This record gives sequence, C-alpha cells and structure tokens, in this order.
Amino acid sequence: MKIEIPEGSPFGLVNLPYGVFSTRESGPRVGVRVADFVVDLAMALGDEVFARPSLNAFMAQGFDRWKEVRGRITELVSGEVPGEVVHAVADVTPHLPIEVGDYVDFYASEHHASNLGRLFRPDSEPLMPNWKHLPVGYHGRAGTVVVSGTDIVRPCGQRKAADETAPTFGECRRLDIEAELGFVVGTGSPLGSSVSTAEFARRVFGVVLVNDWSARDIQAWEYVPLGPFLGKSFATSISPWVVPLVALEAARVPTPPQDPEPLPYLREAEPWGLDIDLTVSWNGQDVSHPPYREMYWSPAQMLAHMTVNGAASRTGDLYASGTISGPEKDQRGAFIELTWGGKEPIQVGDEERTFLLDGDEVVISATAPGAGGGRIGFGEVRGRILPATEAKR
Amino acid sequence: MKIEIPEGSPFGLVNLPYGVFSTRESGPRVGVRVADFVVDLAMALGDEVFARPSLNAFMAQGFDRWKEVRGRITELVSGEVPGEVVHAVADVTPHLPIEVGDYVDFYASEHHASNLGRLFRPDSEPLMPNWKHLPVGYHGRAGTVVVSGTDIVRPCGQRKAADETAPTFGECRRLDIEAELGFVVGTGSPLGSSVSTAEFARRVFGVVLVNDWSARDIQAWEYVPLGPFLGKSFATSISPWVVPLVALEAARVPTPPQDPEPLPYLREAEPWGLDIDLTVSWNGQDVSHPPYREMYWSPAQMLAHMTVNGAASRTGDLYASGTISGPEKDQRGAFIELTWGGKEPIQVGDEERTFLLDGDEVVISATAPGAGGGRIGFGEVRGRILPATEAKR
Repeated sequence: MKIEIPEGSPFGLVNLPYGVFSTRESGPRVGVRVADFVVDLAMALGDEVFARPSLNAFMAQGFDRWKEVRGRITELVSGEVPGEVVHAVADVTPHLPIEVGDYVDFYASEHHASNLGRLFRPDSEPLMPNWKHLPVGYHGRAGTVVVSGTDIVRPCGQRKAADETAPTFGECRRLDIEAELGFVVGTGSPLGSSVSTAEFARRVFGVVLVNDWSARDIQAWEYVPLGPFLGKSFATSISPWVVPLVALEAARVPTPPQDPEPLPYLREAEPWGLDIDLTVSWNGQDVSHPPYREMYWSPAQMLAHMTVNGAASRTGDLYASGTISGPEKDQRGAFIELTWGGKEPIQVGDEERTFLLDGDEVVISATAPGAGGGRIGFGEVRGRILPATEAKR
Repeated sequence: MKIEIPEGSPFGLVNLPYGVFSTRESGPRVGVRVADFVVDLAMALGDEVFARPSLNAFMAQGFDRWKEVRGRITELVSGEVPGEVVHAVADVTPHLPIEVGDYVDFYASEHHASNLGRLFRPDSEPLMPNWKHLPVGYHGRAGTVVVSGTDIVRPCGQRKAADETAPTFGECRRLDIEAELGFVVGTGSPLGSSVSTAEFARRVFGVVLVNDWSARDIQAWEYVPLGPFLGKSFATSISPWVVPLVALEAARVPTPPQDPEPLPYLREAEPWGLDIDLTVSWNGQDVSHPPYREMYWSPAQMLAHMTVNGAASRTGDLYASGTISGPEKDQRGAFIELTWGGKEPIQVGDEERTFLLDGDEVVISATAPGAGGGRIGFGEVRGRILPATEAKR
C-alpha cells in the first residue's frame, strides 16, 4: 500500500516520531508514526531491536544508527509499504515508549519560577540568587512516569493551610498540572565524566510532552528544605511519540538573553532554544498557550549542568524543562499561575475553576516549525482525574 | 566440604546476607555469604533465578519464597557442601547487588537535621515545622549508586562562599560523607495504592550500608528551593551484602518517643527502630560511632509515607535513612557535623582534618544483635577519593 500523507499533516516525512504500540495480535513493539498510521519497524525493517517493549535498545545504538534508520524509514514510507506492517493509529494501543532511567525535572522558565516564588514565598525575592547562574533542577520518581491516557488517581497526603496549627491527612485539594517538554537521553555517559553543551545533539534522542501533575497543598507543606517529593511523585504523564531531535532543526532559536553570562561549561556555540508552541486544554477548552521559545535555559545547558559533577547518564534518562510559562497570563503552563494561587478563577465551560476536580481531563499538545515550511506535531499528553481511593480517606 | 564458621563470626547462620559476585571463571551471579565464604546459589540450589547479575528476579518472587530459600540455604550450609560452589570471599569480585529502581534519601535523624539546620540556616529554627509530622525525603540519582570499593572522583561544580558576589566553577572544596542505612524494596506496589507500616516486613527484602557522598559547597549554593541535586548525584556507595530483614529481628527496638503523635498512616503496631551500631573510619582511624537506634522515623514509616500518595514502588527501589547522628559529638555520621562546618577540625592520624582530601579513604561498617545472642555484620562500604579530572578544571 501507499501511505497517504494529507497536505499539512503534523506527522509527515519531516517528523517521523517513534513510539511503542501493541495490537490485538501482537505485544508491545516499536513503531514510527506517519500521518494517521503506525509502521511496525521490526517487521518493516526485519530488525529484532524494534521487537521490544521500549525504544531503549535502539537508542543505545547511537546517533549514526539513528540517522541510518531514519533514512531507511523515509525511503520505505515514500514508496509501496506491505499492508501488514501498517496499522491505523486508532487501532493500536500506545505504551510508555521508553524504560525510564533517572527522571530529572528542571525549572527553566523565568516567568514560572518568578510566579511560583511570589506564590510560595510572598515575603522574599521571587527568584533565588542561584537561579540565573545555573538551571535549577531535582530528581523525580522514574517509576511513576506513565504514558498519555493513564488515569490519574487524586493523591492523598499531609497538607497544612497557613491558618491551621497542625497538618491534616486527606485528599489533595489543589491538584494542578505543569506543561513541560521532556528530553530523552539516547546514549549515556560514564561515571566521572561530563557532557558538553556541544554533545547534546548527539546524545539526546528526542523530545516528548510532559504533564508533571502537582499536588500544590502537599508540596507546599513538605518541600522545605529538601524539595518536592510526594507532591509530584504520584504521577508524571508523557506523550507516546518521541519526536527525534533532528526533526526540530527548523525550530531552533536563540534562548532569551542570559545575563549574567553563564559560566563557561554552560555556554553554547549553537543555540538550542526551541520555537515550540504548546496548548493546554481543560475539559476541551483551550486555556493556555505556553511558548517554549521563552525558556531561559536550553536543554543543552540542562544536560551539561546535570553531568558537570561527573554524574553518569544512561539510555532512557528523561529530563524535563519545568513548567513552560510565557510573559502573558494566557501563556502560563500551570493552573496555580493561571488562577494566581486559586484567587483568580478562570472560566472553563460554564464553571469558574481554580484547581482540578474529579473527572476533569487535561490535554497538552504542541507543534513546531518543520523542515520545508510546514509544522510538525508532538501529538498529545492526556490525563483524567479519578477520585481518591476509599482506603486512603 | 564443611564450611567452617568461627565462633563469633558476624556472618554465621543467623545472618546469611545475599550479594552478587563474579570469579575469574564466571560472570556476575547471586551468592550468599557464610563466614569468609560465598556460596554460588545458582549452582548450589540449581536455580537459574540466581544466575543473574542482580538480586531483583529473586526478590520479585516475594516473601514466602525468600523464607523458603533461607531455609534451604541454612540446611545446605549446615552440612556437606560441594567444594565447587564455595569461594573464599577474598577470591571474588563483589558487584552492585541490586538493579536500583528509584533511589530516595530520607532525613530521619533529629540530631542530624538539627545540626544541618544550624549550619545551613543559622538564622532560623534548626528543624522545619514539617519535620516532626512526616519523614522528610527526596529522590536521588539511581544511576549513580555504586558498589563499595568504587573510587569516587572529586566532583566539580558551582559554589559560592558567603563573602563572594558570584559563583565560581571548580573542584568541590567541602567533600563529605553521610553514614546511612539503605532499605531494599523486594516486592513493589502498584500505582494508585499505598503500603501500610504493617506491610513493611513483607515488602522490604533487606538492608545495606550507604555512604551518601556530599559536596557541601555545591549543595549549599544549589539547594534552594528544589533540594539537593549535583551536590549528591555524583555517587552514592552501598555495601555489597544485603542483610535480610528477617535477620534483624533481634535488633528491633522502639523508635525514640514521637511527639506530636504521627498521623494514623504513620503509626506502627510493632516497632521498627533498629539497634544497629555503625562505625565510620577515616584513613583507618575510627572517628564516629553513629547509633541507628536514635533515628526518629522508622523504615516502616518511611515506606508508608513514600507511597501514601499512591506512588508505585518497584522491586529494587532503594531508600536510605539519611545521615545517622546520635546526640554525642562522636556519634555524628557526617564530617560537616563532626567538624562543625569545618570550624572545629578533628585529629586524623597526624593531621588536623575537616573535609575529604584526595586519596582519603572512608569505610563505614556496622553490626547488630543477632538471633541467639551474638552479633551479625553488615560488612562495609568503602570508598577512596580520586582527584577531579583535568578536563573539568
């Protein structure tokens, strides 16, 4: 068969994102998305590295191999493809595309960090003294990274309002999202060595959308002095399609001016800002349009920072940008910012809303300029809130 | 052959810790330590689950299976053992015993948290308001957990002294240790569920010694507001022998009184404080004796807290206690406390010392009461500091 790619498809030949899918007949395996189809790569290319439930084995083969495979796929899907290796996207089940090594979450948006500083620490300077010298980040829970479509059970935990004398236990009352990009490490680096900003393009395999679900009341009570823990660790959702970094060449832009000039290990010869437009949809209504191009620190700087102390990195490591917020109100990537700590509700359908209610669904999507003038798509990361389980009330 | 167990051996039949070892003839596989010998379990028991480079597959089989295998090993090593399944400990190479899922580090010693609070935040209350309500913790880097004996390259990074106006990049000048216990999750729990304190004994497989190497200057500059990151992520060393939790029945003691009474999900019907004595040795000189029995929060409480928000846990997850410090000066488990931020040097051999110098070696060891009146051993976690690599200067 010939795969029809409609004019303007976000999944044309200049994108070709990878994912893991299963069908009624076959278990999880690697596929590439073309228009509204998924091509079974193990069958199409006759290579067992794709007959696995994650991209990790393929990613570990390295940059030159990624390039070769992309060339072969382009050739393959431009011509006649055997019908049995092609599935309609609607007919397959997506799975978590990578086996996550370590998960790190950065905090690279100046607008987000300033907004959160004002909300969490109203009596101090919004940005900490270190913020413009290094990309602040922390480790999250790799074992609770889930694929788009996974339901999110409302977490329980300790929370204490400012006017309460002691914490109470119960359901999260300020359940929030964080719209982010995630970067997937393809080839790692050994213990005791570091990765330069120039190596980013050869080591990072691709990019996913991330929803870093956040329980703001739990987080506010627990996070001093060692950082977020249970307020974040209950779930982090990612999109099923990993957009190859090479598909984003046309999206590259300089980061906003960095002042003071970063220390040498954080400087870049080539810019790795990315002109990616996100959309946050709450129960079907678009409520925000976070612009990735506004991010202060680039993903190449994040990787260089993460390894400058000699920390090893591994195939499958995932690091996320932190909430993407632009300067405008309707560019904020978290509801705590959009509603200013819940004090300025926004209209969602017929209701005024602040934080997430049971049954709410959030979809984050994104597009970027692609080679040749069109736009490429990231698909979406979707999640619905389920009520807290009875046992924990 | 008959395995000789000398009177008073810390590795007698009431201990039987598991590890992963290799020999000149065979790759990494699971063994059990008896006196100064290692028994090859795949060969001795004829079971392929032990012919693997980590304990994970065996741990995943669950509590009843652990009990059965412990019974079979006890029987086996009490009688005649085929000579080819026994190796002298001195003849084998130890490996990381587990494939680490997520690594979490707690902060469960009141003495340590108070000391660090005084040193890092001299103008505030040493303990944060949340500290006595929940076991404070954070995620660390699972990919840099290494086995005892691995050399530790001095990390580089950003640091800024209080009297400097901007950070500089360079070698860590305040390299420290943290003497801790680590708890290895044997059987995990699914996303959306929690683990009660009562389930601890069936889910946690065993205990290791941990040295959570810490770059205090990097940590002090980076850690606000999202917690420790590069100051810790360059390496965390663990001992090669995982002491089964069931071997610690005789070491169980109540935790110190907890006031205020913890919320219901943190209460314990049976105490899981542990009477374990650690020793920290610096270049061959014993400098501290941290008492685990002084820890405010128990490991059962840590596990219940870590999962109360519905976070999944996995076979191979490792969570550590945080630095073990007692009330006395010579019971402090970190050099920043022992030397009070470097202001009160201690005598190590012929020299006055504060933080670690290149070439220094630290060994942490521990013993606990065992069944029948003797003491069982944890072996040791050892590491030597190598100079920072030239490329990073």
